[in-house]
Amino acid sequence: MDYQAALAAYVGAFVDELARAGVRHACFAPGSRSTPLVLALAREPRIRLWDHLDERSTAFFALGLAKALREPVAVVCTSGTAAANFLPAVVEAHYSRVPLLVLTADRPPELRDMGAPQAIDQLRLYGSYAKWFVEVALPEGTPLLLRYARALAARAAATAREEPAGPVHLNFPFREPLIPLAAEPPDVSGPEALAWLGRPDGEPFARVLAGPRQPSAALVRDLAELLAGLPRGVIVAGPQPDEALAPALARLAATLGYPILADPLSQVRCGPHDRDLVVDAYDAFLRDPEIAGALSPQAVLRFGAIPTSKPLLLYLERHAGAQQIVVDPAGWPDPLHLASHVVHADPAALAEALATQLAGIDCRPDPGWSELWRSIDMRARATIREEVERIQEPFEGRVFAELAALLPDGATLFAGNSMPVRDLDTFFPGSGHRLRFLANRGANGIDGVVSTALGAAAALPAPLILVIGDLSFYHDMNGLLAARRHGLRATIVLLNNDGGGIFSFLPQAEHGEQFERLFGTPHGLDFRHAAALYGLAFTRVESWPAFREAVRASLAGDSVSVIEVPTERARNVELHRRIWPAVAQAVRGAVLPAMRR
Amino acid sequence: MDYQAALAAYVGAFVDELARAGVRHACFAPGSRSTPLVLALAREPRIRLWDHLDERSTAFFALGLAKALREPVAVVCTSGTAAANFLPAVVEAHYSRVPLLVLTADRPPELRDMGAPQAIDQLRLYGSYAKWFVEVALPEGTPLLLRYARALAARAAATAREEPAGPVHLNFPFREPLIPLAAEPPDVSGPEALAWLGRPDGEPFARVLAGPRQPSAALVRDLAELLAGLPRGVIVAGPQPDEALAPALARLAATLGYPILADPLSQVRCGPHDRDLVVDAYDAFLRDPEIAGALSPQAVLRFGAIPTSKPLLLYLERHAGAQQIVVDPAGWPDPLHLASHVVHADPAALAEALATQLAGIDCRPDPGWSELWRSIDMRARATIREEVERIQEPFEGRVFAELAALLPDGATLFAGNSMPVRDLDTFFPGSGHRLRFLANRGANGIDGVVSTALGAAAALPAPLILVIGDLSFYHDMNGLLAARRHGLRATIVLLNNDGGGIFSFLPQAEHGEQFERLFGTPHGLDFRHAAALYGLAFTRVESWPAFREAVRASLAGDSVSVIEVPTERARNVELHRRIWPAVAQAVRGAVLPAMRR
Repeated sequence: MDYQAALAAYVGAFVDELARAGVRHACFAPGSRSTPLVLALAREPRIRLWDHLDERSTAFFALGLAKALREPVAVVCTSGTAAANFLPAVVEAHYSRVPLLVLTADRPPELRDMGAPQAIDQLRLYGSYAKWFVEVALPEGTPLLLRYARALAARAAATAREEPAGPVHLNFPFREPLIPLAAEPPDVSGPEALAWLGRPDGEPFARVLAGPRQPSAALVRDLAELLAGLPRGVIVAGPQPDEALAPALARLAATLGYPILADPLSQVRCGPHDRDLVVDAYDAFLRDPEIAGALSPQAVLRFGAIPTSKPLLLYLERHAGAQQIVVDPAGWPDPLHLASHVVHADPAALAEALATQLAGIDCRPDPGWSELWRSIDMRARATIREEVERIQEPFEGRVFAELAALLPDGATLFAGNSMPVRDLDTFFPGSGHRLRFLANRGANGIDGVVSTALGAAAALPAPLILVIGDLSFYHDMNGLLAARRHGLRATIVLLNNDGGGIFSFLPQAEHGEQFERLFGTPHGLDFRHAAALYGLAFTRVESWPAFREAVRASLAGDSVSVIEVPTERARNVELHRRIWPAVAQAVRGAVLPAMRR
Repeated sequence: MDYQAALAAYVGAFVDELARAGVRHACFAPGSRSTPLVLALAREPRIRLWDHLDERSTAFFALGLAKALREPVAVVCTSGTAAANFLPAVVEAHYSRVPLLVLTADRPPELRDMGAPQAIDQLRLYGSYAKWFVEVALPEGTPLLLRYARALAARAAATAREEPAGPVHLNFPFREPLIPLAAEPPDVSGPEALAWLGRPDGEPFARVLAGPRQPSAALVRDLAELLAGLPRGVIVAGPQPDEALAPALARLAATLGYPILADPLSQVRCGPHDRDLVVDAYDAFLRDPEIAGALSPQAVLRFGAIPTSKPLLLYLERHAGAQQIVVDPAGWPDPLHLASHVVHADPAALAEALATQLAGIDCRPDPGWSELWRSIDMRARATIREEVERIQEPFEGRVFAELAALLPDGATLFAGNSMPVRDLDTFFPGSGHRLRFLANRGANGIDGVVSTALGAAAALPAPLILVIGDLSFYHDMNGLLAARRHGLRATIVLLNNDGGGIFSFLPQAEHGEQFERLFGTPHGLDFRHAAALYGLAFTRVESWPAFREAVRASLAGDSVSVIEVPTERARNVELHRRIWPAVAQAVRGAVLPAMRR
């Protein structure tokens, strides 16, 4: 069998097994060295192939697909700096635990470190960010190598998917000629058929039997006993994607009488589950030291990643003496070093098991404690609503309050990093709507957000709304190319304050000389031109009725549109800071006397 | 002394020594964690600070400055994926040997790998691409730590600069508060003054005494004796930045009677040096197997990186039996494994030393050999000129022939990767003009080219013209932000064939199904909108008089303008392929009979 037929068999076996392992999407940017992989993927009907041009955006788009689907997505590039452009998305995938199959084409060994063009050292290119790295064998059309290619695909997909999910990097050296030419397999019979054709009936070559990490009975019993003796506790639900966590936490909270401080990205704040103990205004009322001090917990039960809210983190730090229990499948998400217990188990499974265990033992919740939280939260939320409604001018926080009323059931809200995700936390009230919240909260980068959101939009049937700041939008404008190219549907709300809005909230705003130049960094860009470049509808809105109309029109449309809300950085800070004292006053006046009783 | 004063002293000492070590430029993108470094740089009058927004473009802009100046340039970012976005430029800096000082801000140890926001593992982030990596000590205001900060800056700049030059990565952990507050140094006297104020009279804290690698007398003698016995040889000048190489090679070529096959990026093709033996049409005439076979060398003397021309590489491979001598300060640039000798020495110094040595011994050049090359080259170049002049429609190759006549003395031509740099090689004739040729030929990426070229334009007083394809232009449109922001001056010639033009030259064009979708990848973008976004003049030209007029107008202007030349991919290949037989015929008919005699 000649080389091109062997090449076709080899990459064909690999791609066949990716499909059998459940991989349904692959993204690529054009290149020559990657030809064998891209042609094999193009020939595979079970995998949808998404073509892109800028590798940085390509990888973030794949990340978005994988994040929304919670399934491994392949991303392919040619050799050289193409692969280096994947790094930001690989880093984000690592920290946000998104399964990615990074398939880089490479020059063969004889062309490496010898000055050959477009040859860079791609071995362990993604360092500690790749969960698994493989320097793949050179293609051969032997049964052993074909079984290897099949097993490799099965294992790569399973490894990316297993908790904690993450990026897997396979580096494929290819010699010229790079065009695979499919040929009939040789007369195969017996064990060789397996290598050439795979297992019968489309079965995967190797099934990987693994699942979430179940807590042991002993672990659950000990933890339940500890918590049963601590009636004043809080559950903190940080960012995490599992929809099964919300009902499990609701049940656990009801059993313990603990409020759930629910980050929107926890998928616990909104939804059809029991939301009786869900607290959503903590970011506002915990800013007040007196309130934060008075709400002294005996236990903190943390699920998911670190919450977005800084006041919440400071509240946890203030009560460092409490039993703080961090639940995570594998890591140690505790930057303030507060954990008294770290539980390595699947969060939803642990919550379910704990609730069941607690129901069987003598656990007496303190009704005054949960009632206090509920009452504070209601007052705080009502005050935020009143304050926000008084703000008629463009205000970034109000965007989220408005969206809460506009988003249809099933919609996804993707929040950009820096200010949008913080304002989402503060201003988006909980509700019974089935909504999904996404963000790139692994490394919190402002890069790649457009592409990640569009990748998620490509994966999801219901509407997706991205709320993003101007610096982040600018960073990944190249990602907008995918919108028309792939006929995507999404609404982009662009909060344009002409620069780095978050810095106005930081000490730099007071102390740093040359603040505007070094931190504010205005760009003066009119993004109408960017929308025109990519053929997207663009609306600049200056009033709330206009905003609502634009969002409704976009939700009813079938393409990607950009709705720009122009705001002013200093004024935005002022409007934010006007709300906190009002919240503190409303809560303190009504609730603190009761607490002191 | 309080922490903020210590911080100011520490980063101040570091930046002071960067300036004393000759660092004149620093680039940054806004961030919070990097505040100490950015404020210290902003306070340093000897260093010009360039603000950017997208870190990928930021690092490439710094690369362009460093490439043009051949001096270390600092590039600063905050923690997280910001640093990951530097990777493509760091890879290019490594392979193209450009001195870069990559200064990344990081979270301190207690915030790492604990789920803290925007904290990623930055240790050895750039892997094998960083020439030197340092996890910098946390800031302290003690004499020991201040001397450390000073020595670190001196060593980092020297390490980046020493041959082979490259990127150095310093990772700075910073705790909050991040604002350095300069205070009067304590009453310093004796040895402590050194730490606080540096050495007297602005002297660097540590001078690093190093220089190019001089060849030993024995090495030169042996090599000269070898070459003196091989009258039929060629010198191949590949991409390299040193202006001193051209006159040295001219002298050596004259002594040996060897032609110099001069890649434009070698800086040898054009210039005021003796160009008598410079051959510039090899890419066209070596495509003919008969000619390439007949020009059989006994010796090949290679300088610089791998030449751009594939026909030239195949010519070297065809004559694998020749003594092939590769000269390089440190590496082994020989992907076809042809070298019989690898000489680790400074190229210009070796050429000078060899010429001197050969002048003193019995070296008898073969005048027929050099005359043959000269005659072939003249015929080939004349044929190319005639063929190109007959092409009245837009043709990518003709752009370079036109530019050769338009560029003023002192100008720089920056060639994009993929097709432009190849067409530059083929179509740009040698001349006595003092021109500089730049490209990103370390990893040959199409990413970051706009920013690298604009960084070079920012460093150079004379006009810079970038010739770039549409995919590469698209890839780094974000880099255009620097144009107006920093009042830059450059001409961008955008060869727009709506997709990946190079693939039409490759076997993929014949064999791959779905060629357009997988390789051609048309985007349909009207770049007029991109120019409007960044406030740049944009002209689309459809005729050669219009092209000339637009280039002249841009050269006379004081801003960045884009001149788009729309071409058609398939037609472009056709026009290229029409030229080669004409060249072969012209050369063969006239010269081969003489060669056979």
